[in-house]
Amino acid sequence: MIRIGICGYGNLARGVEAAIYNSTDMELLYVFTRRNASDIKLKTENALVYNIKDILNFKDKIDVLILCGGSRTDLPEQTPELAKYFNVVDSFDNHHEIYNHYGRVNESALANNKTAIISTGWDPGMFSLNRLIMESVLPKGKDYTFWGRGVSQGHSDAIRRIDGVLDARQYTIPIEEALASVRNGENPTLSAREKHRRECFVVAKEGADLKRIENEIKTMPDYFAPYDTAVHFISMEELKKNHMGIPHGGFVIRTGNTGIDLENKHVIEYSLKLDSNPEFTGSVLASYARACYRLNKRNDYGCKTVFDIAPRDLSPRDYSELLKNTL
Amino acid sequence: MIRIGICGYGNLARGVEAAIYNSTDMELLYVFTRRNASDIKLKTENALVYNIKDILNFKDKIDVLILCGGSRTDLPEQTPELAKYFNVVDSFDNHHEIYNHYGRVNESALANNKTAIISTGWDPGMFSLNRLIMESVLPKGKDYTFWGRGVSQGHSDAIRRIDGVLDARQYTIPIEEALASVRNGENPTLSAREKHRRECFVVAKEGADLKRIENEIKTMPDYFAPYDTAVHFISMEELKKNHMGIPHGGFVIRTGNTGIDLENKHVIEYSLKLDSNPEFTGSVLASYARACYRLNKRNDYGCKTVFDIAPRDLSPRDYSELLKNTL
Repeated sequence: MIRIGICGYGNLARGVEAAIYNSTDMELLYVFTRRNASDIKLKTENALVYNIKDILNFKDKIDVLILCGGSRTDLPEQTPELAKYFNVVDSFDNHHEIYNHYGRVNESALANNKTAIISTGWDPGMFSLNRLIMESVLPKGKDYTFWGRGVSQGHSDAIRRIDGVLDARQYTIPIEEALASVRNGENPTLSAREKHRRECFVVAKEGADLKRIENEIKTMPDYFAPYDTAVHFISMEELKKNHMGIPHGGFVIRTGNTGIDLENKHVIEYSLKLDSNPEFTGSVLASYARACYRLNKRNDYGCKTVFDIAPRDLSPRDYSELLKNTL
Repeated sequence: MIRIGICGYGNLARGVEAAIYNSTDMELLYVFTRRNASDIKLKTENALVYNIKDILNFKDKIDVLILCGGSRTDLPEQTPELAKYFNVVDSFDNHHEIYNHYGRVNESALANNKTAIISTGWDPGMFSLNRLIMESVLPKGKDYTFWGRGVSQGHSDAIRRIDGVLDARQYTIPIEEALASVRNGENPTLSAREKHRRECFVVAKEGADLKRIENEIKTMPDYFAPYDTAVHFISMEELKKNHMGIPHGGFVIRTGNTGIDLENKHVIEYSLKLDSNPEFTGSVLASYARACYRLNKRNDYGCKTVFDIAPRDLSPRDYSELLKNTL
C-alpha cells in the first residue's frame, strides 16, 4: 500500500481522502492541519491528525504527501519547502505563475532526491493534457476551453465582500452558441462575453439596497463587467436548499485540418460534468500521487507536471491486463 | 529533422504522408511498397519510392519507420521483423491479438536496441488512453465506447463479397438513446443492437435479386445479424457522388462516483468527429513517431504502447513553452 499524507483539511482534502478511501493500493495515514488537530474528525478510520508544525517528524512515514492548500498563499510557500522532505503532489492552479512555481519546486526536489508533481486537477490537469495531445495530433488547428456550468469560488467570494451581502453563489455558464460555432469548425474569435455568462444567487441583509448591490456586482471590473451577468436575490433558506453543491465542469474542443491541402476537418472534444468539483479534483490528485510514488521508486526526481506522466503510471492495474482489456 | 520512412502506400500511408508534410520537425524521405515503385507518385517532393525488398539498405538512413500495412496479414509479420532494424510505429488494431503482438515486437526491439510503438491510432490509441486515464481517475465507475457515424471498411468489404453486388458502403451509427442513457449515468447494460445500428448503401448488378441481397446482408452472422440494419440500393453514380469519403468518429464516456459513500456522480466524455479516418489516424501515428524517436535517443528500448508515452513526447514544442502556454 502506498502511504499517503494530506496537508490541509478543507474541501479538496476531503475529496482526496474519499479518493484514497475508494482506491485499492493507497492508504491515508496522516492529515496535517494549521487548526487544532483535536477539532478535526476524519472520515478515515485509523488515520491520525497532527498539527502542521510537526510534519517533519513524518518524513520517513509517508510515501507521498498531497498538498491541499490554496494557490494564492499556501502552495507557493509549501510545495517548494515540503518537496525537500517529501514526494509531493499539488493542484497549483495560477496559470500565469506555474512556470516560476515549477522552477522553485524542481530545485528543492532535485536537491533532495524527491519527486513532485504540480498543477494536477482538471484545469490545469486533465484539460491541459488534452489540450497538449489534441494539438500534437492536429497541429493545424485551434483549441477552445469553456468552463461550467459550475460554481466559481473566487466570484462567489467577490460578491460576499459587497456591503449588504450575507452570502452568494456564482455560476459560470458556457454560451451554447459559442460551443456550437466551435464544434462546427468555424474558428470563431470569441470575447469573454461571447464565451461565458455569469449567474449570481445572492442573499442580502434585510433592508439592503438591492439595486445598489446588483449594480456593484454587474460593474465589478474583471470579475463581472466583461460578462453578461444575471443577479437573483434569494432567501438564505433557498440558498441552503438549492445551492450548497459544488458542481463544475467544462469543455476542451479542438478543430483542425489534415491533408496536403488541409482539405479535411476534424473535431476532438473532451468534457467533464462534475457533481463535486473538489471530489473530482481530489480523485485526480490521488491518481497522480500513485504516479509520483512510482517515479520516485524509479529514481526519477525533480518537478513534473501532467505532461510528464505516462498514462500507465496513473493506473493500479497490471500492464499486461491493460494491454488485454483496455488498449 | 526526424527522418521518416513509410512502409506501404495505401490510404493510411497517404494520411501519414500528409501529417509529416504538415509537421515542423519531421521529413518523409522514403516510401517502401510491394508494388512497382515507378507506378507510385508521392505528394511529397524529394521523397523516394523503393520496393520493400530493398528496405534493409535504408536502416541507417531513417530514424523512424511508420508501418501502414493491415492488421490481418501485414503487421503480424512486418512489425516484429522490421523492429530488428528500425524504430517502428504501427496501428495494429486487432484488440484480441495486441498482447501477443506486443510480446513478439518487444523481443525483436529489445534484442536490437530499437524502440517500437504499437497499436497507435484512435481505437486502439486515443480512445485507449482516454479509457485508461478516465478509469484511473474514477475507479468506481463504468466506461462505454461508441463508434461512428463512420464508414466501416470491414463491413463494406463483407457486403461486396455477396453475389450480385458491385460496390457498397456501410456506416456504423451509434444509437442516440444509448448515448443519452450513458451520459445520464444510468449504467445501462447494452446489447450490440442497442449500441449501434448499421446503414448500407449498395450498388447491385443489373438484374440482380435485390430481395436476396438485402436478406443476405441482414442475416450475415457477426457482421449484421446482431444489429438493426438498413439496406439502400443506389446507383454507382450516387455512390461516387455521395459516399466516397471515409468519415468516422466515436465516443468514450465514463460515468463514475466519488465520495466516502459514492454520493457524487461525474461524467467524462471524449469524442472524435473525423472527416477522414485515415488522415486522422495517420496524424496520430506521426505524433507517436516523434515520441518513438525521442525514446530511442534516451535508450528506452523495446515495445511500447500509448500507455507508456508521456504527453510531452508527442509535442514538437519546448517544455518551458508548454508550461507557460498550455498547462
